[in-house]
Amino acid sequence: MDYRAPVTDMVHVMRHVAGLDDALAKGLHPDLSAELVDQILEEAGKFAGDAIAPLNRIGDTNGPKLAEGVVKTPPGWKETYRDWADAGWNALPGPAEHGGQGLPGLLNAACIEMWNAASLSFGIAPLLTMGGIEALTKHATPELQELYLGKLISGEWTATMNLTEPQAGSDLAALRARAEPAGDGTYRITGQKIYITYGEHDMTDNIVHMVLARLPDAPAGTKGISLFLVPKILPDGSRNDVFCNGMEHKLGLHGSPTCTMVFGDKGGATGWLIGEENRGLACMFTMMNNARLGVGLQGVAACERAYQQALSYARDRRQGRAASWQGDGMAPIIAHPDVQRMLMTMKGFTQAARAICYITAGALDRAHFEAEADARRRAHERASLMTPIAKAFSTDLANEVASLGVQVHGGMGYVEETGAAQHLRDARILAIYEGTNGIQAIDLVTRKLPLSGGETVRVEIARLRAVADRVTKEGGAAYGDTASRLREAVESLDRATSHLLKALSGNAQQDALAGATPYLRLFGLTLGAASLAESALASAEGDPLAAGRVALARFFAENQASLAPGLAETIIHGGTFTESAELALAS
Amino acid sequence: MDYRAPVTDMVHVMRHVAGLDDALAKGLHPDLSAELVDQILEEAGKFAGDAIAPLNRIGDTNGPKLAEGVVKTPPGWKETYRDWADAGWNALPGPAEHGGQGLPGLLNAACIEMWNAASLSFGIAPLLTMGGIEALTKHATPELQELYLGKLISGEWTATMNLTEPQAGSDLAALRARAEPAGDGTYRITGQKIYITYGEHDMTDNIVHMVLARLPDAPAGTKGISLFLVPKILPDGSRNDVFCNGMEHKLGLHGSPTCTMVFGDKGGATGWLIGEENRGLACMFTMMNNARLGVGLQGVAACERAYQQALSYARDRRQGRAASWQGDGMAPIIAHPDVQRMLMTMKGFTQAARAICYITAGALDRAHFEAEADARRRAHERASLMTPIAKAFSTDLANEVASLGVQVHGGMGYVEETGAAQHLRDARILAIYEGTNGIQAIDLVTRKLPLSGGETVRVEIARLRAVADRVTKEGGAAYGDTASRLREAVESLDRATSHLLKALSGNAQQDALAGATPYLRLFGLTLGAASLAESALASAEGDPLAAGRVALARFFAENQASLAPGLAETIIHGGTFTESAELALAS
Repeated sequence: MDYRAPVTDMVHVMRHVAGLDDALAKGLHPDLSAELVDQILEEAGKFAGDAIAPLNRIGDTNGPKLAEGVVKTPPGWKETYRDWADAGWNALPGPAEHGGQGLPGLLNAACIEMWNAASLSFGIAPLLTMGGIEALTKHATPELQELYLGKLISGEWTATMNLTEPQAGSDLAALRARAEPAGDGTYRITGQKIYITYGEHDMTDNIVHMVLARLPDAPAGTKGISLFLVPKILPDGSRNDVFCNGMEHKLGLHGSPTCTMVFGDKGGATGWLIGEENRGLACMFTMMNNARLGVGLQGVAACERAYQQALSYARDRRQGRAASWQGDGMAPIIAHPDVQRMLMTMKGFTQAARAICYITAGALDRAHFEAEADARRRAHERASLMTPIAKAFSTDLANEVASLGVQVHGGMGYVEETGAAQHLRDARILAIYEGTNGIQAIDLVTRKLPLSGGETVRVEIARLRAVADRVTKEGGAAYGDTASRLREAVESLDRATSHLLKALSGNAQQDALAGATPYLRLFGLTLGAASLAESALASAEGDPLAAGRVALARFFAENQASLAPGLAETIIHGGTFTESAELALAS
Repeated sequence: MDYRAPVTDMVHVMRHVAGLDDALAKGLHPDLSAELVDQILEEAGKFAGDAIAPLNRIGDTNGPKLAEGVVKTPPGWKETYRDWADAGWNALPGPAEHGGQGLPGLLNAACIEMWNAASLSFGIAPLLTMGGIEALTKHATPELQELYLGKLISGEWTATMNLTEPQAGSDLAALRARAEPAGDGTYRITGQKIYITYGEHDMTDNIVHMVLARLPDAPAGTKGISLFLVPKILPDGSRNDVFCNGMEHKLGLHGSPTCTMVFGDKGGATGWLIGEENRGLACMFTMMNNARLGVGLQGVAACERAYQQALSYARDRRQGRAASWQGDGMAPIIAHPDVQRMLMTMKGFTQAARAICYITAGALDRAHFEAEADARRRAHERASLMTPIAKAFSTDLANEVASLGVQVHGGMGYVEETGAAQHLRDARILAIYEGTNGIQAIDLVTRKLPLSGGETVRVEIARLRAVADRVTKEGGAAYGDTASRLREAVESLDRATSHLLKALSGNAQQDALAGATPYLRLFGLTLGAASLAESALASAEGDPLAAGRVALARFFAENQASLAPGLAETIIHGGTFTESAELALAS
């Protein structure tokens, strides 16, 4: 049940796959060095493993309690949260002018993975705060920034996102919460929001709600939505008219309060406009894109935690005999080929998801720090392309890895005390919140593939092809069929991409939508296979982990990337089902 | 949350895919007709939907309680179980000479699916009883049969399987429970068994435990294990020395008591030998093979239940706009291509799993009822080949379908009140108990492929190839690429089978074990694609469901069978990882 941050793996992928070495060489982060990154991650890993990880089961079995609008978090959470914020971890990526440390998002991404691997229920709180900081930094007035940014960056206060209403989930056009101008520059907010993570809690003195609502004269649909800042405690110290009146009974994430929030039951909650009127969705997307990468990192975290627990169990548990086990008595189950397959799948998926999320974080840094405007634009588009993959592929894998983790444990995995089942329950929300994975796939296909007329995705595919070339040239016999499988995957991705771009530009929108989910999978598998190969190729001479990286890259190419041509076939020729779905689903 | 048995679908696959029409035409079941099958299933469906389905959530939220060795089942369970047994459902497949109705196992398989779709926690109890009946019928003395078979067949008593001990799960060679001859023909049983489903409960007056234990002079390993019948209440009416001293706190199946059973804490539980000394494992395998098909049927049941709930939600829930929706306001989410993909995957998986399990049940019937000994032998081998696929493929799909069911519900799926999450929690055990799916895959490859020197699997592959030929000849334009994808799947299966048979006969046992799990998946997908195509081809002229069957068969071929060549590639070329797993899993 312990968690130990895999700092060596993390730093290796940051430096050699997500471009940190290159960024440092270019001087994009003048105050940073590879050594400093190591040190920071070692410290973060200690905090995550020693202080946060022990909270994970406590939160599961002894969740937050709601009484008269007040939510009491599980034992130890408040203290640990404060220690964590006091140690400066919340301020890592924040802008220096408001007390942040201004460190790259890539570094913070590795830390986010750690907090969440230690406890998803704990780690989700600062993720939302960081999204709020991003939205305020980009869109709020200097006055609001002055009032709120410092406390949010220090972690003294937390932030929430208030989007969903019962009738408005994936479709925000349907939302009904209202905002009336009060005449003094503020607004009176009324309405109900559901599924609000950490909407109410006792870890901080104030909570800053970011709320979507409609002005009285707003146009219908998504063009009539505005974003408001609604603090729990008003600047004058009085209590605002926003209250939690219920908590969900969820499959997992029992440690995290998921609240129904009522705004304005006593006449109207006081709110301040963020950005322009009716342009709230654009502001919210700033926050959501950040949060989407954050949820992808939660997926990586869920994978890593489940993998560590399964690996440890498989080394201890003994059953049966195995050819590779020469010791006394029964073999540890890690010696059985089928268990090895499960564990290598878990590890390969974890590292693939991590590489994709870190690449996305690295691209976001470049969109900010690159010297040339064109380089910043290209990096921004690359991050935009990668974000839905980072979110959806990682969290799909989290479900699969957590389920494999249960399977490795056999019957013990089904017993709650073991902890493997908690990972499965906790991880299951990740493919749903911050935009379901279906929505991510549609975003990838319909909004991201067309970026720069298809150039953004073409550049990425060319990069992947170059990795396959490198494996052919530099990889030795130990790589087996890695280069062939990777090349087939890249060509499959290329074919599928051309098909979808053509469908989008023609009259085959339905066909593009029908293929979106397998396309995201295909993209993720290809990126994953290439990343593992890059990671293997980048091992320094004499690195004791080098042979293991090669073995894992080969396993992934031969056992996962091998599915790529079939996925392309499905995307290109399998999409006609939308024409007959009604018949097929009748009974 | 309701369940309505899909009787039309069930009967269609029984008759046209699982061979019932052919068996009836051959006179194998002289007392049965297609009409009678319809009637029986309609009645069973009513009982399942009306009486059992409402228990499902009660069991989840209000599970059995253990106090002083007595287990009280959830409210309504005892009464419903008695009504169910009184109606004769437990006696359906039992031999007539002990009060059973002697109906084919295929018919019972459909009923088992219904009881379990209504409630997995409820349905598992009679599954174990039926396994016990099978073991007693084949291996017990006439005296024991006389004492126990009648009450077990009527359902007045239930049976359990007592195999697992803390150190002996997948590896029964390690079991330690002991049996000492008492000198009067009985034995004194001592030891502890864990994970005993319905090991103790209040639904019946007696519980018949089938217990594996070792005689004092027994050889080590699996050749020193004997099977004993240990009743809770002895024939003289006194309480036997077997007690439940704990229940597991599980991820799901909260309605079903999972007990730790202590035998002989007061000197020794009285038991009777079943079959020969030291041959207990063979007897237990009779029970386990039966139970393995039963668990496969539970997988089908879990799929069907999750599918029905997701379909119903997708028709009601409205979000966004869709090209295929011309009505007012937001579209029902079933109009979105990505949701259609999820639902068609769920339905296709459900029907594939059902067909495979029913084929297996039909083959078991033929192993019993065919006139010619050679036909019986061939049918028995076919059933043996199919059993691990029926168990593992169906239950892997159950996990995937239940997870898709949650996904279709979006955020609502993560909230326990909705019920979608319960299906996921409940289904998660199916891939683990009665032999983990990894064990099933190894059984398939190492024991079943070599049956009759490979002839059994070759015959099955030839049958699948013939289905592809039929689609080419008889299927029209609506079948799209069904024939091509199915043919590629069959040829992929053929190649992978040849590779594994060669590996087994040569010196590449590790390679065969490494490929076992993807091979089982490949076999299942190919069988599933062929079964859906057969089902479509068998639709009578004018059948209003015909077009839907074709659309589903096509979807399955183009979107699932399309993965077959990649799986074959993995099996044939991806198995070297066992040589480097230790390195890859080091950190």
